Amino acid sequence: MNDRYAPDGRVDVMEDSIPFYQPVGQECELFERAFRHRLPLLIKGPTGCGKTRFVAHMAARLGRPLITVACHDDLTAADLVGRHLIGESQTYWADGPLTRAVRQGAICYLDEIVEARKDTTVVLHPLTDDRRILPIDRTGEQLHAPETFMLVVSYNPGYQNLLKSLKPSTRQRFVALTFDFPPSAVETRIVTHESGVEQAMAQRLVEVAQRLRRLAGIDLDEAISTRLLVYAANLIRAGCEPVMACIAAMVEPLTDDADTAAALKEVIRAGFAP
Amino acid sequence: MNDRYAPDGRVDVMEDSIPFYQPVGQECELFERAFRHRLPLLIKGPTGCGKTRFVAHMAARLGRPLITVACHDDLTAADLVGRHLIGESQTYWADGPLTRAVRQGAICYLDEIVEARKDTTVVLHPLTDDRRILPIDRTGEQLHAPETFMLVVSYNPGYQNLLKSLKPSTRQRFVALTFDFPPSAVETRIVTHESGVEQAMAQRLVEVAQRLRRLAGIDLDEAISTRLLVYAANLIRAGCEPVMACIAAMVEPLTDDADTAAALKEVIRAGFAP
Amino acid sequence: MNDRYAPDGRVDVMEDSIPFYQPVGQECELFERAFRHRLPLLIKGPTGCGKTRFVAHMAARLGRPLITVACHDDLTAADLVGRHLIGESQTYWADGPLTRAVRQGAICYLDEIVEARKDTTVVLHPLTDDRRILPIDRTGEQLHAPETFMLVVSYNPGYQNLLKSLKPSTRQRFVALTFDFPPSAVETRIVTHESGVEQAMAQRLVEVAQRLRRLAGIDLDEAISTRLLVYAANLIRAGCEPVMACIAAMVEPLTDDADTAAALKEVIRAGFAP
Amino acid sequence: MNDRYAPDGRVDVMEDSIPFYQPVGQECELFERAFRHRLPLLIKGPTGCGKTRFVAHMAARLGRPLITVACHDDLTAADLVGRHLIGESQTYWADGPLTRAVRQGAICYLDEIVEARKDTTVVLHPLTDDRRILPIDRTGEQLHAPETFMLVVSYNPGYQNLLKSLKPSTRQRFVALTFDFPPSAVETRIVTHESGVEQAMAQRLVEVAQRLRRLAGIDLDEAISTRLLVYAANLIRAGCEPVMACIAAMVEPLTDDADTAAALKEVIRAGFAP
Amino acid sequence: MNDRYAPDGRVDVMEDSIPFYQPVGQECELFERAFRHRLPLLIKGPTGCGKTRFVAHMAARLGRPLITVACHDDLTAADLVGRHLIGESQTYWADGPLTRAVRQGAICYLDEIVEARKDTTVVLHPLTDDRRILPIDRTGEQLHAPETFMLVVSYNPGYQNLLKSLKPSTRQRFVALTFDFPPSAVETRIVTHESGVEQAMAQRLVEVAQRLRRLAGIDLDEAISTRLLVYAANLIRAGCEPVMACIAAMVEPLTDDADTAAALKEVIRAGFAP
Amino acid sequence: MNDRYAPDGRVDVMEDSIPFYQPVGQECELFERAFRHRLPLLIKGPTGCGKTRFVAHMAARLGRPLITVACHDDLTAADLVGRHLIGESQTYWADGPLTRAVRQGAICYLDEIVEARKDTTVVLHPLTDDRRILPIDRTGEQLHAPETFMLVVSYNPGYQNLLKSLKPSTRQRFVALTFDFPPSAVETRIVTHESGVEQAMAQRLVEVAQRLRRLAGIDLDEAISTRLLVYAANLIRAGCEPVMACIAAMVEPLTDDADTAAALKEVIRAGFAP
Repeated sequence: MNDRYAPDGRVDVMEDSIPFYQPVGQECELFERAFRHRLPLLIKGPTGCGKTRFVAHMAARLGRPLITVACHDDLTAADLVGRHLIGESQTYWADGPLTRAVRQGAICYLDEIVEARKDTTVVLHPLTDDRRILPIDRTGEQLHAPETFMLVVSYNPGYQNLLKSLKPSTRQRFVALTFDFPPSAVETRIVTHESGVEQAMAQRLVEVAQRLRRLAGIDLDEAISTRLLVYAANLIRAGCEPVMACIAAMVEPLTDDADTAAALKEVIRAGFAP
Repeated sequence: MNDRYAPDGRVDVMEDSIPFYQPVGQECELFERAFRHRLPLLIKGPTGCGKTRFVAHMAARLGRPLITVACHDDLTAADLVGRHLIGESQTYWADGPLTRAVRQGAICYLDEIVEARKDTTVVLHPLTDDRRILPIDRTGEQLHAPETFMLVVSYNPGYQNLLKSLKPSTRQRFVALTFDFPPSAVETRIVTHESGVEQAMAQRLVEVAQRLRRLAGIDLDEAISTRLLVYAANLIRAGCEPVMACIAAMVEPLTDDADTAAALKEVIRAGFAP
Repeated sequence: MNDRYAPDGRVDVMEDSIPFYQPVGQECELFERAFRHRLPLLIKGPTGCGKTRFVAHMAARLGRPLITVACHDDLTAADLVGRHLIGESQTYWADGPLTRAVRQGAICYLDEIVEARKDTTVVLHPLTDDRRILPIDRTGEQLHAPETFMLVVSYNPGYQNLLKSLKPSTRQRFVALTFDFPPSAVETRIVTHESGVEQAMAQRLVEVAQRLRRLAGIDLDEAISTRLLVYAANLIRAGCEPVMACIAAMVEPLTDDADTAAALKEVIRAGFAP
Repeated sequence: MNDRYAPDGRVDVMEDSIPFYQPVGQECELFERAFRHRLPLLIKGPTGCGKTRFVAHMAARLGRPLITVACHDDLTAADLVGRHLIGESQTYWADGPLTRAVRQGAICYLDEIVEARKDTTVVLHPLTDDRRILPIDRTGEQLHAPETFMLVVSYNPGYQNLLKSLKPSTRQRFVALTFDFPPSAVETRIVTHESGVEQAMAQRLVEVAQRLRRLAGIDLDEAISTRLLVYAANLIRAGCEPVMACIAAMVEPLTDDADTAAALKEVIRAGFAP
Repeated sequence: MNDRYAPDGRVDVMEDSIPFYQPVGQECELFERAFRHRLPLLIKGPTGCGKTRFVAHMAARLGRPLITVACHDDLTAADLVGRHLIGESQTYWADGPLTRAVRQGAICYLDEIVEARKDTTVVLHPLTDDRRILPIDRTGEQLHAPETFMLVVSYNPGYQNLLKSLKPSTRQRFVALTFDFPPSAVETRIVTHESGVEQAMAQRLVEVAQRLRRLAGIDLDEAISTRLLVYAANLIRAGCEPVMACIAAMVEPLTDDADTAAALKEVIRAGFAP
Repeated sequence: MNDRYAPDGRVDVMEDSIPFYQPVGQECELFERAFRHRLPLLIKGPTGCGKTRFVAHMAARLGRPLITVACHDDLTAADLVGRHLIGESQTYWADGPLTRAVRQGAICYLDEIVEARKDTTVVLHPLTDDRRILPIDRTGEQLHAPETFMLVVSYNPGYQNLLKSLKPSTRQRFVALTFDFPPSAVETRIVTHESGVEQAMAQRLVEVAQRLRRLAGIDLDEAISTRLLVYAANLIRAGCEPVMACIAAMVEPLTDDADTAAALKEVIRAGFAP
């Protein structure tokens, strides 16, 4: 498998089966080294900066199936490992996504791991130390993860939650890397590639986004993500007037506060003023 | 499919199968553009301002089935996605409304999304990014949403709830637009159309409602909605004296406080004084 | 169906099948108008003032079956809508009382609606706007309420509960009216009719109750209801000494506080002093 | 059925099948009147003062079966009304104790009703007003209580619980009476009758108990009950030294605090000093 | 059955089938009298002082089977009474330990009763008054306890828990006695008997324990128990150096605080200094 | 079975089937003595210091099967003991891991015991005193643990949790020992052995780790563990630049705070400066 990414930001021709990912630093090498040495990986970064895409890209590059689980408040260990179901003549065991990933030697990606119930993170422990086993208490089975199994988890450290955080004893079990929004040139290229707008328009959108991100005294729970830039570009390509597209994609989804919205709109209007 | 709405507020002749909706701005175009480009839509606005009607109208115009889910405190991901039921000889899987909508390529409308349990909003994530997939963890199935599938969610930002809000990482995944009560002329037309009262009475009711909405120092959890105006108009058309109809439809449902009620009633009586 | 009530308080001869109800104002007309125009009704008022009796009376007058649900902390949407039960060879669906009422075109009365879990109030929304539908998520069925279906809910605004209140977005969907204890003459007539005591004794009981209700500095969670007056009258007719009957029916059920009880008893003894 | 109790406190010969009960006031007449007029009864009073015995006595006197339910934190409406069980070929309905009592026209006694979950108290409402019906939501059945059905509930107002109290709207539906520890002569007779100790010893125990109950500055959650006096008398009759018996039955069960225990023991030793 | 214990602390020869118990006061007589007069017993005392052993000893002496239940946060009434299980062709009832004890006329010992859920303590009420019945609500059955059934409960009053305590209305139903750590001579004898160390070493361990228990300014949640002394003696007999044995058995299990541990170790080293 | 460890830190040749463990003090002897005398063992120490490895090592040395349970918030007694499952023609009992360990005479290791629900720790009590029994309430069975059964539990006292701690009455039932990070020479040997890096690099990593652990004013929830050192060494051996490897393995997993991360990185860069 050849390296297909270019650390300097060049967009290489990618085969259709490998999702487009525009690398920013050496994240691809680190992922691959962790994969080769069977180390679990923790990816930290804000919403919409490309973590999910990055994992999909790496799974395809490494030729492994990817099993993604969007974690949430009620996700329990049983949801990951499996449970007994009632069948025709007796109960049978139905593997959960984590168990399927271990059996197949797949990459298992737990998105927003901090959202999951605590028991789900602890069930990961025996998989993340040198034992690399998945004990299934309910059946008494104990699976040994094959060499190609890799566990990847992510969370957003900027979205503080008093009640939720990754337990230190869990974090300690991962090699970690931090994602952020890409630099201007890279982000422009992504917007162009994803939406099909002209590069000039993509560049204008990225400039507006960066001004919005730097806006002092604005209290948003989340910064404007690359994903929202792509949404705005999509609306524009669909015939929407740029200011209206930016409001629908970059202001309304981020705030309900009239003053905040007004400040954001002003920046947008200035950005598209002739 | 022709445009049937008139942005200037004219009531066009609508076929019976398309629910009446009186547009205020460019909301219909934005909805259609989001639909055509497969972007999920978030509608913000107060209770009773016509969000549900708007979505029903658009679904009919676009010729797609509409599946509506009224979200509530106990609505879980399993309620949306589906669950196993015990059948004649073995368990079988019963699709939830979201899964049905994905399979049919329907418009799925989650009303008052912030009421739902957090796991229901997070289950939407893979459907709202470029993957557009619905993973069904319990069966291991993974559905790819067809082109015509659209996810629409709504909530009321004015009804503050300390414990409940849409997670920023979820909001970020939607194109959004804000609804408010319609301007006088439009609201009068709606009241006339829905209740069948004379236009003069509808106009009187709208004027009273606007005075009530502007009443200083009145602390109501919700403003008087267009829906309540239609209720009052209905009672009046049924022979009810206007003041009594307004009290039953616009005062009693909104407050239990005697002083607040007295202030509202005074405005109503003044509004219908000869 | 003829009007059988008399707004001036006269007791008309009622057929046995129609429960006795003594109107105070125009509540019967308003109920009937709401019924005829398919508007849902909210009744507010203290415990024991006759709300339940009023609804039973109106249902009989309008010739519709009445399905009453006493709401409580654990009443869920599934309790109202229905659930799957395990039958002989497969699961079958068992309608809940709300679903039964919709299918039969009955009047469904949810008593003390604020006690119910939030999901039960929200499940009512599609039934209380112009759609008048009951979506049954678990089966995928969607019922259209017939013309004769009416939803009536009640709650007691005087019994404050910090954790419980009717959501503004729910209240907004109802025409509402407020009940209070009836005026002296009406209450005397009710006590006579219900217990069979002489009118003089009924009048004496009503006078005592009104003095108790006006007692300054007494902190009771609930005022003395008409129902309790009827209880006391029943005990008296059974041979109980009036003061003892009033203590058992009007003091002991209302307070555990010795000082409060002493003050109430003094008023009662004075009321029956020769 | 003849009256078997004597309001002046005389112990009448009782048939074996009627549990011994020593009346203090007119509680037996009130119970019987409430029974004859189908009024539900609320009994208030401290632990161990004879409420349960009183109800058993009255049920036997009135010749009705008695169904007693000890309420607790997890007692739900379904525990009282019934639930579906899985049988040989299909589910079948199993009546709960309240439903059994309604069907049999029995006296149903809910001991310590405030402990029960709120849904259990509200399910009682339709049984405690003039409708006297028990709606069984799960089956759609609606039972009409026969004339001989009576609902009796009790609770201890002295044992304060911030989170638990009988809802005013529930209390309002009962005729009520208050129990307290019996006067000396009556309590002595009860202790003699129940334990078989000499009257002199019973009198000594009652005197000690009354001194303990009056002890200033002692903070016990519960006063020394008649039941504990009977326990002490039983130990004494079994050969136990009186002071040791009183400590085991009247001090250790009431307090874990060394100072409180010492004060109580001192009173006991003084009471049995030669 | 002869008395086998000696109140003066002499170790009598015990048959193998009767667990060794070294009495301190008259606890054996009180237990036997409560058993003979069908009074329920409450034992209070710190962890590891011999409560469980005492009950096992008395059950063997009285020739009754002993059923012990270690109570915990999730122990419910159903765990004690029983539940329905699904069998070959229909559900069947499976007795819980309390029901088994009632049917067999056994001694039922609920260890650490305050840990149990509240519903478990209240289910005991009808068993602890003169009715001595166990109503099984789920089946409608009502068991009368035979003469030889005895209920014994225990808890540790020294381990304070704000959320947990025995309800006064439950405590009131028991004869009670308080346990403490045994006096030196008795404790030395127990350590010798249980571990097999020389009496001199046992005595030395008891002296060290007593100095540790008296240590001023040391804040331990639990005092050093007799059980831990036996553990230390066992390690010593296994070849462990005494100071190291005491640290492993009497310091590490009791504290995580370095300063507290240092103070305890100093006393231990001093106690074994030559 | 010969001793294979060397208290002075020498690495002996180990058979493949016995996991490598580098002893620091006399922990192996204490474990073996506890095993031989049937005493339960509590191991205290920080995350990643080798507790799990130590237990695996000892189980192999003692020739006993090891059953490990990673405890978590939702781990209940039923998860440990077992539960009924529905089989072909009736329910059958499925042993949990603790029951399996008791039946096989295995070593049962409950990792991070404080995470488990309280009922799981209390279910251990009868297994940890002289009775050594496992009562299975749900089946009425009572297992006597064979001589070779040993219970080992661990927890991390440094990771404070206000809501979670081992109940004193549970702690009291264990012989205990405290683990810490190994001294430099031992830790260097471990890193070399586990990762295969040169000893010089391992030594450099250990020095950096010790400087990081001593860093004043740094507030980390967990110290840098030996496991993370091994991770860094693995990345280095995979071709990663040492500073980058240390950041990915020793900074990113431990903190989300930019200032803390900067301070840690500075120490790392200094440590690898030429």
